[in-house]
Parts: sequence; C-alpha cells; structure tokens
Amino acid sequence: MAKSRFEYVRTYEQDQVLLPNTYIVIRLDGRGFHRFSAHYGFAKPNDSRALNLMNKSAVSLMKQISDVCGAYGQSDEYSFVLQRRCRLFDRREAKLVSTFASTFTAYYQFYWHDYFPDQPLVASMLPSFDARAVQYPSLAELRDYFSWRQADCHINNLYNTSFWTLIIKGGQTEKEAEHTLMGSNSADKNELLFSRFGINYNNEDAMFRKGTMLIRDISGAPLQTQNPSQKDHIALQKKSKRQVEREEKKRNKAEIVESHDDIIGDNFWRESYKWLS
Amino acid sequence: MAKSRFEYVRTYEQDQVLLPNTYIVIRLDGRGFHRFSAHYGFAKPNDSRALNLMNKSAVSLMKQISDVCGAYGQSDEYSFVLQRRCRLFDRREAKLVSTFASTFTAYYQFYWHDYFPDQPLVASMLPSFDARAVQYPSLAELRDYFSWRQADCHINNLYNTSFWTLIIKGGQTEKEAEHTLMGSNSADKNELLFSRFGINYNNEDAMFRKGTMLIRDISGAPLQTQNPSQKDHIALQKKSKRQVEREEKKRNKAEIVESHDDIIGDNFWRESYKWLS
Amino acid sequence: MAKSRFEYVRTYEQDQVLLPNTYIVIRLDGRGFHRFSAHYGFAKPNDSRALNLMNKSAVSLMKQISDVCGAYGQSDEYSFVLQRRCRLFDRREAKLVSTFASTFTAYYQFYWHDYFPDQPLVASMLPSFDARAVQYPSLAELRDYFSWRQADCHINNLYNTSFWTLIIKGGQTEKEAEHTLMGSNSADKNELLFSRFGINYNNEDAMFRKGTMLIRDISGAPLQTQNPSQKDHIALQKKSKRQVEREEKKRNKAEIVESHDDIIGDNFWRESYKWLS
Amino acid sequence: MAKSRFEYVRTYEQDQVLLPNTYIVIRLDGRGFHRFSAHYGFAKPNDSRALNLMNKSAVSLMKQISDVCGAYGQSDEYSFVLQRRCRLFDRREAKLVSTFASTFTAYYQFYWHDYFPDQPLVASMLPSFDARAVQYPSLAELRDYFSWRQADCHINNLYNTSFWTLIIKGGQTEKEAEHTLMGSNSADKNELLFSRFGINYNNEDAMFRKGTMLIRDISGAPLQTQNPSQKDHIALQKKSKRQVEREEKKRNKAEIVESHDDIIGDNFWRESYKWLS
Repeated sequence: MAKSRFEYVRTYEQDQVLLPNTYIVIRLDGRGFHRFSAHYGFAKPNDSRALNLMNKSAVSLMKQISDVCGAYGQSDEYSFVLQRRCRLFDRREAKLVSTFASTFTAYYQFYWHDYFPDQPLVASMLPSFDARAVQYPSLAELRDYFSWRQADCHINNLYNTSFWTLIIKGGQTEKEAEHTLMGSNSADKNELLFSRFGINYNNEDAMFRKGTMLIRDISGAPLQTQNPSQKDHIALQKKSKRQVEREEKKRNKAEIVESHDDIIGDNFWRESYKWLS
Repeated sequence: MAKSRFEYVRTYEQDQVLLPNTYIVIRLDGRGFHRFSAHYGFAKPNDSRALNLMNKSAVSLMKQISDVCGAYGQSDEYSFVLQRRCRLFDRREAKLVSTFASTFTAYYQFYWHDYFPDQPLVASMLPSFDARAVQYPSLAELRDYFSWRQADCHINNLYNTSFWTLIIKGGQTEKEAEHTLMGSNSADKNELLFSRFGINYNNEDAMFRKGTMLIRDISGAPLQTQNPSQKDHIALQKKSKRQVEREEKKRNKAEIVESHDDIIGDNFWRESYKWLS
Repeated sequence: MAKSRFEYVRTYEQDQVLLPNTYIVIRLDGRGFHRFSAHYGFAKPNDSRALNLMNKSAVSLMKQISDVCGAYGQSDEYSFVLQRRCRLFDRREAKLVSTFASTFTAYYQFYWHDYFPDQPLVASMLPSFDARAVQYPSLAELRDYFSWRQADCHINNLYNTSFWTLIIKGGQTEKEAEHTLMGSNSADKNELLFSRFGINYNNEDAMFRKGTMLIRDISGAPLQTQNPSQKDHIALQKKSKRQVEREEKKRNKAEIVESHDDIIGDNFWRESYKWLS
Repeated sequence: MAKSRFEYVRTYEQDQVLLPNTYIVIRLDGRGFHRFSAHYGFAKPNDSRALNLMNKSAVSLMKQISDVCGAYGQSDEYSFVLQRRCRLFDRREAKLVSTFASTFTAYYQFYWHDYFPDQPLVASMLPSFDARAVQYPSLAELRDYFSWRQADCHINNLYNTSFWTLIIKGGQTEKEAEHTLMGSNSADKNELLFSRFGINYNNEDAMFRKGTMLIRDISGAPLQTQNPSQKDHIALQKKSKRQVEREEKKRNKAEIVESHDDIIGDNFWRESYKWLS
C-alpha cells in the first residue's frame, strides 16, 4: 500500500532484543494487590481461591504459549521460563513482557468468576499485572532464580502465618503482632506457632509454604531432534521451519504438571531434562 | 527480612530506561485480531461496537493513568502519549509497556459485554494486546507520528471500504475484489465507490475515516507552575513532590475529550497547549 | 565468499543505536591521568603544554570527523557534540565511542613530542582515554550540559589554584592546604588568593578558568538546503546522498574556532546558529 | 565540592551494562586499513611486520588488562575475550570498548617505529581502531566465535594468496585475477597455486594461514579459590575484594603464549582450562 511521508517516524522504534541462548524468565507481579486483595476480601494470610486462580491463569498461558517450559508462582507473582533456544517474537523484550502481562490478565479476569463467584469484579478495581524479563546465561543461575523465589515464599509465608495467627487467634492488633515478631528468626516463629497456637507450620498447606511449580512434561514424547551425538554448535544453529513446527506440536500436547515440592534441593533438578531440554 | 544466598540473581535484572524529556508513545496492538474479529462476527469493513469498546478502554486507561496526555486509536490499535517530563515507573520500558497492555486488556474484557451483549467471550478466544514504547525528542516528530497513524487509517479504511463494498454490494469474491482494486490510487477508489455504488466516501462515519483522538483537556485549569518566564533549565529539573502531586490532582480531574477530526493539518496542533503542555 | 558453519555467532552482536535527532555528546576522559601527569611532570595546578596538546588533538579530530559541531575541553577531558541529524556510523554507540577514543589517542600521542619535546613517552605509561555517549533531546539540555562542564572547570580550577598556591607559594603541605580550604566557598578562595598572595583570580589565564570551546564555524558558508520555510517534518526526513555529500564538503572546509569565554550566559548561545544549525 | 544547578544533565547518562557471567568478546578493527596499508606500503598479500605489530600491541594490552584471558588476531582485527566473571568497569560496554580501542591504538602507534623503522607515521594517516563487544552465554558459542574468525582468516588468506600470486607471479591485472578466481572453491585455489606456481599452500607461514592465538597461561599457578567441590551458585556470587586482588596478581604474572595452530578442532580446546577457567 501507499506510504505516507510520515513513515520515517518508524525509524525511532528501537527493539530491545534479548541475547540468544540465555534462559529468559518473565516475572509478572500484581499491581496494587494489597488494595485489590483487601477490596475483594481475600482470606489472610493465604487465600486458596486467589492462589488457585493464579495457577489456573498460569496453566492457561502455558497452554497457549508453548515456548514456556515451566513456571513458579507464589502470592501475586508468577515467573515463566522460556526454553533457551526460544525465538518467540524474535526475543524482543517489549513484545514478550506486554504479551505475557496482557494474556495473563485476560485469563485471570475470565476465570475470576469460577473462583470468586460471589464477588463480581468492579470497573474501579480490575486486576492488572506488570512484567519484566530477566536473562540467565546458565542452568546454575536459573536454578538459583527459582530457589530465590521459593526462599522468598518461605520467608514471607512463615512471617505472614505468624502475623495473622497472632491477630486472628491471638487477638493482637496489627501493630502488636508486628512488635511480637520483631527480630524473630525462623525457629522463633515456628516455636511461637507451635507453643502458643498448637500449629505445626510444616503441616500447613504445601501450596502456601512452597508455592506452585508448573512444568511442561515433555519426557513422554522425546523429540527426535535431540540427538546427543550432535555437536553443540549444530544445536545452536537455527532449526528448520519444519523442525520447529514439529517440536511445537509436541510441546503443545505435553501435559502441564503442578507440584508444591521443594525446588531448592537437588532432587527437583535431577529431572529437569523432563521440561528444560 | 532475611535475605537468601540466592539473592545475587537480582543483579541480572537490567532495566531499559527511556531517555528523560522525550515524548513517549506507547502503542498497543490487538494480538491475532484477524481471527478474533472473525470469531466474534465483527461487521466489515468497520464494526462500531468494536471501535467504541476500544475507545471506552482507552478513556478508562487515561482516567487511571494521569501521565497520559492524549491518545489516538484506529482499528485494533491505540497509541498513548506520555507527557514529556513524565516519570511514571522511572520511565522503565518493560514496566510501562506491560502495565499499559495489562490495564487496557482488563478494561476491554470488562466492558466487552456492554458492547457485545450477545457474544460472550470464550476461554479459547480472549482478547489480548501487545505494546511497544517509542521515544520522540521533539514535538515535530510527535506530530508526525500521529499524522502517520491517521494517514495509515485513511489508506486502510478507503481500501477496506472499497473491498467490502465490492463484496457485499457488488457480489464479488474476495479474490475478485482484490483484483479489482489492484493498482488503484485514492482517486480511483473514491470514483469506484461513487460511480458504482453511489457512495460518497467523505460521508462515511468520521470515526471510520479519521480514527479517534482523545485528549486530556487541562486548559480549563492552568497549572500555576507553568510560568513562561522560567528558564528552560529550571523546567527540566526535578519538580518537588508537592508540585508533582498538585499537578497530578489537576490532571486527574481534567476531562478526556474525544474527536474524530483531521490531525494532520495545522489546526489541531494550534491548540496542543491544551493537552501537551 | 563462502560462509562457514560458525557464521551464526554474528547473531549475538547487538548494536546499541542512539535515538535519531538527539544531540549526541561524546565525552573523553584521560585514564589514570593523575599518575600520568605526575610521571611526565605536568605543572601544577595547570600545565599549558598539556592543555594545548588536548586542544590540538581535539581540533585534529574535528577536522577529520566533520559531524562534530563543537567541543569543550578542560583538564584531561573533552566533550564533542554531534549535529542533531548526524548519521555517523548509523549512530551505533560502541562504534562512536571507540572511534573517538582511538582517534583522539592517536593524535594526542602523535603531537606529544611537539608539546613535550624533552619528555619522550615510555611504553609503561602511554596516554589513553575512555569515552561515553550521552543524548540530549533539546537545545536547552545541551546548553546545560556545556554549562555543567564549565561550572565544573571553574569549581575545580579555583580549588586547585588555591590548593597549589598554598603549597608552592605558601609553603604548606598537601594535607595542610586541604585543611585550609575545607569548608571554604568561592568568595573565600578568591579572598585567600588575593589577600595572602596578591593573586586576582580573574586575571588568571582564561584557558585555565574557563576551559576551551571549539566550534566549527559554518556561518561563512550557509548551506542552500537550510530553507527556513521548509516544514519540520521535511527536515527530519532522510537527506539525499548528494545533499549529505555537499554539506559534508562545506563542513570540512569550515574553520574550527577556539575560544575561552563564558559559555554559561546567554551571549555565547545567541550565535549558536553558527555551529549548531 | 559544590554542585551546580546544571548537575541534572548527568541523569541523561545511560550505561549499557553487559549481562553478568557471559563471555565478553571485544573485537577491534582497523579503520580504513585498506588506504592505511597502501599508504605505508604493506606487502601483499601479507605483511609480517604489520601482523607482528598487531600481535605486539595485543600482548601489551593483555599485560596491562589482566581480565583478558585470550585473544585472536588476523589481518587488521583482534578479538579479546574477558573471563566470564570479569567485573572490569562494572561491565559497562562504552567504557570497555573505548578503553580497549584507545589502549590498543596507543601501543600500535608506540611500537610502529620498531616494525616500520623506515616509514614514519604522518599526521594525515594515523592508525585507529573501532571496537565492539559481543556476549556469549556458553563455552560452545565462544569456541564457535574463535572458529568463525579462523575460518574467515583461512578463506580470506587463501583467496588473497591466490589473487596476489596471479598478479605478482602470474602477471595478471587485478581485474584479470579477480576473473580467474571467480567461482573457484578451496580445492581449485590450492590446485591453481600448486600447478601454476609450484606453491604448496600448506607450507605458507602459519601466521598467515591460521592467524595468531594468544592465551594467558594460568596453568602454572593454579588459584586456590578454584575448588571444584564448591557449588556453582557459590562461584557465581561476588568474590571478596581480597580474593579478587590475589587472583589479579596471579593473572598479572602469568605468561602470554602465542601460537598459530588450528583452533577449530578439539585439540586446542582440551586445554582451555589453562586460560579460560
């Protein structure tokens, strides 16, 4: 079609392209979820409905975008990891983060009613998420990333469980509870929960304590292209269109497996070939 | 709170920060709207419901995010311009584009039912949008950006109107219509519409022909800080927190004005002080 | 020529491209010039030979690279400003900063002997410079940039002049001089120089106090292409190859004018059309 | 010291920081070396003096900047690889490329007289180099990078050797030589050199055929910190200042070893622990 004389403004578009062959993690965070969760009456310290809605949205996104290998969620955040060789949107950062944020938002809102049937969304308080992309050059760092988020989940959840138990069961004000917990370490909080409230923290719901790990289990359908005798530099080269399509088909069929296990120890990562290869 | 030994992975986060004092344009595009519009039976060549839903979503976003001065929309795209000195999210690109894409998606989905009451959204076909940010150093370029989008709207809409008229009123197949229009210029298409179908293109709905311009009209409430005698370098310096808050309050109250006029000629830009200053 | 199977590694090259139509400032800084100047016995607080060598190198660079409009130097640093529409190296940052650093180094070393005939360079102490590129969207900011550097020159030179006068003429140790000056403002230092040493700071060499401004004076040969009636958006579009070559020729012939005047006040900038247009 | 009101312009400085834990390759290229080599009468197709001057400059740079593990040079280019965990200049791209370009230029010019005693440099034809930085996330890609450059060296040198032999020994014009070689593959060129000129290409100087590889041999002095039982995530964390200094000292003492061997095959890389660990 005809081009206008204004077309030159396109030259101002600058795509930030992520490096090839790094692990890309896209982390979404709920915007203003402190107010959002208060408005819709989320249970404290954890609301199973809200967490399951996050998980449902994440699984839906993974089913739609097959380049996502795995994901980890806790509280109002979700991290998605793309396979190393992923070429989605030519690895353009803005396109990646905006698409993930938009797609996740759409599912979250769509499935809202299934998890909060009695709390219709109102225009002045709609859910939204921002997103960022981070690159990790090696598996060691990617693993540490997930460990970081799970350690964060643990630290926050132990605190929040103690805090809200002091309030709900202990009758303290928020200020008092804060004061009670000041300076306490993990052992102190475990002890407090057990001795004062008979709560064994380790018996709390694993989803609360460990968060949720989602993996795309491709182990059932090993791809023919993964010939271990091929040299690395072959693998690094661009695959044929047909290869890409065949792999995508396999990935689309693969099951998304949810778990709430420890991902800091070695066990989880021994089977990482199942979803990261 | 305690920090884990995995905390170092945060150092891999690299924020792409946009240059200070440029006009930032954030353009959203519907993802796969060809299939989306077909699935929900959008009228061809233009569906007023769909365009009004876009406009409603854009106005809602502007009411929520007061740094947006103006916006222009056509088809399944919307461009938002941030005021030059805007410091929203410290001008971090990923945060800006993901937040805009997510927020717009949320409104679009929320108001969907108002515009398409008979076509409930289904999980396999939810609306989503990607976004990009572009920077323009001067007003001349910003103006050319808007002219580019409106010229694009004109070119596409004249083509689409001719194309679908040939099909719907002229009984041609899509292939035949394409062939009929091949090589035709604007005058040819205008003539074709008029002579064969009695359609005066200039009488078509202005929203179809010109798209939609939204401005935040701050002219009614001039801000005290805009002292023209102040030197430029003062204006470029960081404003006090109080100034920023006062301005934000004013901006929040300002009306969002919708129009479907020509924005390529000088007229529209003579009054740009109303929304861009 | 034949391409090897390793060619794919080129896709990892990511060019950081500067925004079109901003003023690009490239600032060079001497690496380790504290030790360098001590090694070659630079006079304190200012060494005319060293400053003139910096100026000579900067003029030589400007004669070679015609996109440079002007430059400002003080101490062991030099800032070069490229014309707004400059397309040198397609505005690739790495190419710009490395070329400027290398070219300046080559001239500095080549002319060294002319300014320091008795101090041959030794391999273990060669001069080198690093460089950075900064973008300014408007003239107001570019002007403030130069003002910043000249204010910096003033502050440092007044301090250094006082410091070394206390040592050389006042017989103080470095520690004592530092202590004497602690907490003093500009007026105090002027007073100290005058009352204790009879030095009127304003009579010091202008090159020491104000640094050196270099402009490419293109006013003598106005370019035909600068038709003020042309609309901005025309000017922003890409020029023809022939236009570019003609302008370059003119720019190459233009004289480089050196001055040591105030560049903070309005006077200097009233004539900026001479070199920035 | 006092800060001026212009200080805000510093906020426009945007450092492009390279990702942690990637291999950084900095490649320098001679600027306009076609004209440069013609001006100073470089021998064709290869000039040993010029190549040895490049090598001397590269070794000198490596002795000064201990973060460089190895380097590969051919023709008028040199590639330097930084150790993966290198934190030189906080991995700021502009600082890295400008410093390398400037430092290399200084050595090249300084040692020029040793290699070209009869050809003094002239001001209008000084040597200069640009530089770029490329990141590789894994060893496989880094190896492929070096293979790419050596394959390039081979392809170019075989062509140039054939081309200049046809001219110098075969009496052809440049145009004729170009025509003779058109469409020829490697075997053809080898055959042409042997059958028409009795030249066995494999007997040509290895430096011409293979380029020059420089490694910093740290194998003689294994660093205590390299405890293989340490977990990866420990190694990825920031080292103590003392560790860094101790390592730097060792690296500074390590010998720079020059070779002209094949670096595409496995042999060379089996011993990469000697310089890349």
